[in-house]
Amino acid sequence: MAPGKFITIEGTEGVGKTTNMAFVQDYLQQLGVDLLVTREPGGTPLAEQLRELLLAKRDESVDPTAELLMVFAARAQHLNTVIKPALATGKWVLCDRFTDATYAYQGAGRSLPLDTIAKLEQLVQGEIRPDMTFILDIDVRLGLERAGRRGELDRFETEEIGFFERVRSMYQQRAAASPNNYRVIDAGQELEKVQRDLSAELTALFGAS
Amino acid sequence: MAPGKFITIEGTEGVGKTTNMAFVQDYLQQLGVDLLVTREPGGTPLAEQLRELLLAKRDESVDPTAELLMVFAARAQHLNTVIKPALATGKWVLCDRFTDATYAYQGAGRSLPLDTIAKLEQLVQGEIRPDMTFILDIDVRLGLERAGRRGELDRFETEEIGFFERVRSMYQQRAAASPNNYRVIDAGQELEKVQRDLSAELTALFGAS
Repeated sequence: MAPGKFITIEGTEGVGKTTNMAFVQDYLQQLGVDLLVTREPGGTPLAEQLRELLLAKRDESVDPTAELLMVFAARAQHLNTVIKPALATGKWVLCDRFTDATYAYQGAGRSLPLDTIAKLEQLVQGEIRPDMTFILDIDVRLGLERAGRRGELDRFETEEIGFFERVRSMYQQRAAASPNNYRVIDAGQELEKVQRDLSAELTALFGAS
Repeated sequence: MAPGKFITIEGTEGVGKTTNMAFVQDYLQQLGVDLLVTREPGGTPLAEQLRELLLAKRDESVDPTAELLMVFAARAQHLNTVIKPALATGKWVLCDRFTDATYAYQGAGRSLPLDTIAKLEQLVQGEIRPDMTFILDIDVRLGLERAGRRGELDRFETEEIGFFERVRSMYQQRAAASPNNYRVIDAGQELEKVQRDLSAELTALFGAS
């Protein structure tokens, strides 16, 4: 059986990732794709526990390398026990964040060396990379304003503006460097327009819904 | 101020690590050493939470690379926020397990490549290595018999004999390869004799108590 496609959705706070994940999910399922929808960090019981540890606000300051290794620990568990087995049986996988988020948040955001991330990516993933990544792109202040409307902030959401500017810029750079594997969607538009753009990209890539 | 010494104690299940840690602690404190006593995985609130995730028995099978990365995540947090600051102010650090345990349990026990562990050791520790490591060495079956007397077993303690044979052998190999930095103590003896041996090594290394 042909391996399934691995699709990821990325973006900074307030881009409407949840809503647009559901939109992409609906689109693919209407095409008849057998789809696994999952998220990072998370996607297995252990990886979800690691997610909780990562997001929890704490008195203790979290060492950036410890954070990076927790992210890749969760990824190893998720990839080897959930994503790879699903792809191998021909399922498609739609994942809310993946390693682009690590380059963006831990690399650009926390200023960890990108080659350290690349080495861990190789260790954990081997040759596995998403087939297609949608970057939901938004002005950082506008995104934070939207995210701020949604109640209490986690350990990442409380970072300062400069952190998110670096994160956004890294997403843009990675998309520009590999245009065949990324689509950047302007998520600052009205939702209807965002989804019209998403729909156009999905149709061009995978056919009409 | 001269940096403090970093001393670790290692051993398989049932070697009497807790009792002998306390013995070494007493010895050093009687010498007037300002001592921090800690353990791995653990030693900070976040690292202790990672320890709980590592030791918990689960329905989910734990990917070995995920386990390895969790161990080093806990180590990065412990080393950078607790151990290094203590050593820098002249404290000595006595730690129940450290990276030798990773070579033994994840390397030999889980058959993960030793060069992967060496790379993570370099990433997390830089040049920091223990000044002295005491390996409490015991026949595996005798050790498991002793450990089995202590109630419910964690996720590692439920491994089969061959796992612990590989762990013990790796500890012995590492001690043999760097005799200046390791002392192997026969922990299969009566406790009194174990502590006489420990005491002799401590006196030779650090002076009389």
